[in-house]
Amino acid sequence: MTTPFGTLNPSPRLLLGPGPSQISPRVLRACATPLLGYLDPEYLALMDETQALLREVFETKNAWTFCAPGTGMAGMEAAFINALEPGDEVLICVQGAFGERMVEIARRLGAKVTRVDTEWGRATQPEQVAEALRTARPKVVALVHAETSTGVLQPLEEIARLAHEAGALFLVDCVTSLGGMPVRADAVGMDIAYSGTQKCLGAPPSLAPMTFSPAAVEAYHARKAPVPSFYLDAGQFWRYWGPERAYHQTGMITMIYALREALLEVHEEGLAARSARHRRNQRALIAGLEAMGLTLLVPDPTWRLPSLTTVLVPEGVEDKAVRGALLEKYGIEIGGGLGRLAGRGGRGGRGGFGASG
Amino acid sequence: MTTPFGTLNPSPRLLLGPGPSQISPRVLRACATPLLGYLDPEYLALMDETQALLREVFETKNAWTFCAPGTGMAGMEAAFINALEPGDEVLICVQGAFGERMVEIARRLGAKVTRVDTEWGRATQPEQVAEALRTARPKVVALVHAETSTGVLQPLEEIARLAHEAGALFLVDCVTSLGGMPVRADAVGMDIAYSGTQKCLGAPPSLAPMTFSPAAVEAYHARKAPVPSFYLDAGQFWRYWGPERAYHQTGMITMIYALREALLEVHEEGLAARSARHRRNQRALIAGLEAMGLTLLVPDPTWRLPSLTTVLVPEGVEDKAVRGALLEKYGIEIGGGLGRLAGRGGRGGRGGFGASG
Repeated sequence: MTTPFGTLNPSPRLLLGPGPSQISPRVLRACATPLLGYLDPEYLALMDETQALLREVFETKNAWTFCAPGTGMAGMEAAFINALEPGDEVLICVQGAFGERMVEIARRLGAKVTRVDTEWGRATQPEQVAEALRTARPKVVALVHAETSTGVLQPLEEIARLAHEAGALFLVDCVTSLGGMPVRADAVGMDIAYSGTQKCLGAPPSLAPMTFSPAAVEAYHARKAPVPSFYLDAGQFWRYWGPERAYHQTGMITMIYALREALLEVHEEGLAARSARHRRNQRALIAGLEAMGLTLLVPDPTWRLPSLTTVLVPEGVEDKAVRGALLEKYGIEIGGGLGRLAGRGGRGGRGGFGASG
Repeated sequence: MTTPFGTLNPSPRLLLGPGPSQISPRVLRACATPLLGYLDPEYLALMDETQALLREVFETKNAWTFCAPGTGMAGMEAAFINALEPGDEVLICVQGAFGERMVEIARRLGAKVTRVDTEWGRATQPEQVAEALRTARPKVVALVHAETSTGVLQPLEEIARLAHEAGALFLVDCVTSLGGMPVRADAVGMDIAYSGTQKCLGAPPSLAPMTFSPAAVEAYHARKAPVPSFYLDAGQFWRYWGPERAYHQTGMITMIYALREALLEVHEEGLAARSARHRRNQRALIAGLEAMGLTLLVPDPTWRLPSLTTVLVPEGVEDKAVRGALLEKYGIEIGGGLGRLAGRGGRGGRGGFGASG
């Protein structure tokens, strides 16, 4: 039978934007594996392996390590909705579009938000947080480890210490860091961390790896009211991923196949070697960009993300035209500026397979 | 390098449970297609085609027709969270585990729930709804079209009329009906309908097809406060799926490839032929079951779901042992009883490819 719809045959792309990243043939092949039932003992064993591999990449011993059934944004929302109740205070460090989104999500949940703002392209300084904590009494201190919109790598240790001294949980967005650089959730003192599958892990977008420290689990159990979302209730995730194996939602079987395969690639390469590869490729990319006379958005080299580099669009150049030409002529995708950087910055990520900048 | 983790090589299964259903080779192959960026013009064109195909299968002209980025449960939660605000009244018809889940979700959102309860295995009668509407003044009347936990097909027209006469929106769960039997969203008068991809559509679990009538969109715009969830905000879905093409979350590219391919299979077979195939297979399955001396949970043949048949476990038989033996000896999956039917009913679905009961 004829149909007005064509055969699925997308043009080949080299994905160097901020995500999705390039996927290896091995992970793509995993996506074509016939399904198991979501409670099939063989599928539950694959979930257990995925969980073990997630603990490796987060560098954590946390029991509550699993995936939220949605993209990285589901991870962000699950992190806040499980930690906060309406009226709770939260301190959010904002230095880019994803910090802004944290504020929006926390406000929609009815939390009282204290902002610590930093110029886009720079990292939040511990002194700013210390200053804010003189008056604020937040239940949670939140920030973005690798701000995708600016290309800034945020140092965490000092701010984690300040958060804990103030009796707050430390919540970290690791969407563009997990798998591409050390995250060290336990050593840093992260209480809630989340990520996405489509950046430095090299799987398709669909799932949000997450981990909750014992303190975060304790705070969850001490809630006055149930989490207002059933779909993003971390206790429900644990009922499915933990020993109970209760039905919460139908597992995203194909996407777990893919994530497990991508995590095996991380496991086999090793976190240290993978991190060094990202750093090496970043240095090569930046050397090339600077040799072309381009200026980076992030002035301080120590703040530059190994996994994503932001370039200022030169005077007189129209960024959309450059991106369009790269895509159409060469099949290469890079990202445009987000939020207040719209039209001002092009973003090249290099997480995942073959994306060497 | 060696690893303690084995090669991905699940045992072959014939998935005859309540979902995921068997996936065709063509849809599996679509899952292995290299990624496009989530704003790539070629990807946006595939989203448009998916949207057109979803309108066909829902039988609707609604503009707001798209997928929530999560499994069918995300569709359920998105349906309620976009329609209701805390304190709003909702009338929910409960005749199985998914009606119960609607109640749980609506309560977590802070809605005031009026229940219309029906014995599990039977359909809600319009008189019950009319009776409840004598005192209740709900903003939404909600029910499940195809109750997966009992195998009941719920007649809708009369209850839709009663809901509209009472000035309420009519919200319908089509998770186990869409693609397997007529849903006719516009003709029935559905205001919000949602489904999952892993049942009668024959794609992997991951996305929740949804549609909102103009009245539902109007109610969305008349909200007093923003939807408390950013991730499940239908207005944000529309910003991405509609002409604006704004970034809400990274699209689930692989899963859209799969869903589009599965919807093309529906399109090519035709809704009427597909529906007749399900009915034919259901009759053959039931004839076989009755010849074996088994009793069905649903007494009235007109209420029996074409896509899912529930069998009572005979006295002296342990359902878990039967299901385990089917899986281990023959690689066949059927479902166990859910909720108050745990241990009492085995469920065989026949949505999707090759699942002929």
